Amino acid sequence: MRKLSIIGIGAGNPDYLTVQAINALKTLDVVFLIDKGSEKSALTALRTEICERYIANKAFRIVAAEDPARDRSPRDYESAVADWHAKRAAIYERMIREELADGQHGAFLVWGDPCLYDSTLRIVDQVAAMGTVAFEVEVIPGITSIQALAARHKIPINRIGEPVLITTGRKLAERQSRDAVVMLDGGSAFTTVEDEDVEIFWGAYLGTGDEILASGPLRECTDEIQKIKTDARARHGWIMDTYLLRKTVAS
Amino acid sequence: MRKLSIIGIGAGNPDYLTVQAINALKTLDVVFLIDKGSEKSALTALRTEICERYIANKAFRIVAAEDPARDRSPRDYESAVADWHAKRAAIYERMIREELADGQHGAFLVWGDPCLYDSTLRIVDQVAAMGTVAFEVEVIPGITSIQALAARHKIPINRIGEPVLITTGRKLAERQSRDAVVMLDGGSAFTTVEDEDVEIFWGAYLGTGDEILASGPLRECTDEIQKIKTDARARHGWIMDTYLLRKTVAS
Repeated sequence: MRKLSIIGIGAGNPDYLTVQAINALKTLDVVFLIDKGSEKSALTALRTEICERYIANKAFRIVAAEDPARDRSPRDYESAVADWHAKRAAIYERMIREELADGQHGAFLVWGDPCLYDSTLRIVDQVAAMGTVAFEVEVIPGITSIQALAARHKIPINRIGEPVLITTGRKLAERQSRDAVVMLDGGSAFTTVEDEDVEIFWGAYLGTGDEILASGPLRECTDEIQKIKTDARARHGWIMDTYLLRKTVAS
Repeated sequence: MRKLSIIGIGAGNPDYLTVQAINALKTLDVVFLIDKGSEKSALTALRTEICERYIANKAFRIVAAEDPARDRSPRDYESAVADWHAKRAAIYERMIREELADGQHGAFLVWGDPCLYDSTLRIVDQVAAMGTVAFEVEVIPGITSIQALAARHKIPINRIGEPVLITTGRKLAERQSRDAVVMLDGGSAFTTVEDEDVEIFWGAYLGTGDEILASGPLRECTDEIQKIKTDARARHGWIMDTYLLRKTVAS
């Protein structure tokens, strides 16, 4: 039987790796990588560092494939994602079938946690459903950028006993004045928030040496954070940011 | 200067510890513990195992205090919690001031992640605001029960591009047919959900040897999960469960 681990490697800091992830890495024969264009260098560097540091089998192989093209401004977001998942599934199926021998242990190393806003698990499920190659799946959680954000700002994610919405830039409008953590914000969706008395706790490149943090009343910080984003994107070629919008707590 | 780490030790499985947590543990002089009655034995056992395995300074001390009494069915939830936090703050202040010497490194070991539905960080902020003892705070994220739940069920927490609400049993009614992860459910709030076409992914004692998982259409699983909860609570004396309610995905 082939074994496939989907390993959350945490959000940026190699020290976010868990013992469970390290133990899985130790026994790997193959690491599957999907190259993602612009974010490539920074993410690949972290993955490479982790592989070299923890994989005990020095004969391990890295099998890389190019990420299939994806429509980034589709009319129908869900069907565009489904289409892109199907392309990825075909690539993953071939990689698992051809590059992982029976009895071997392969893995996808996922930024953050594989169960939150990541497609690997869904795509692997699609591959399993094809029935062309049999493998056992293991999912290993990792520290998300939400947790890195809160830890670095030293703040609770939730107010006492209150819910918090985890959402995307695209869906931020649905939050209806609730506290929300925003991931995958391709633009600057926080600029569209109209409530008064909202604080923002913002971070980019969390956990890495390039980490940037900013926080304060949203009204006062909007311009500053947009400027930080523009500058950072120009400098790095990409940006990945996460933020918490929280009703101002009376002190 | 005193240093105080608030260390997320993850949800139950000692292998959920991160390298960052392990590195912090290595240099500890004092571990602060608050005994929490019924959950005491299981949680204390995990903490003790972790301390013995990772703290390099074998002269480290455990300083324990009893959790102050708390009104569990208050009329005003928020003010009852505030009252209980104030009592805890007085205890923490005394422990930090009297038991941690200048230049020493102390820690609170928090189940899950210190930034999600945990009071330690808020109480430590209250102690700092008293101005009676100076210390530097570090917050270390840990794997939450939400992540353990999703990894063990091998499911994504969110549907593609969709938000998910993190909430409590008490506030579940506010979810308004949105996907929701529920923590801190003292009762069985899932029995009050009236939507059709909702699946539940449920887990208790996640990450531990006593872990129990159950999943399926909510309508069909409600009775079974309630029975599992009743039996498990009778057997262990306490229960801590977490669950995801998700609109059924067309397959």
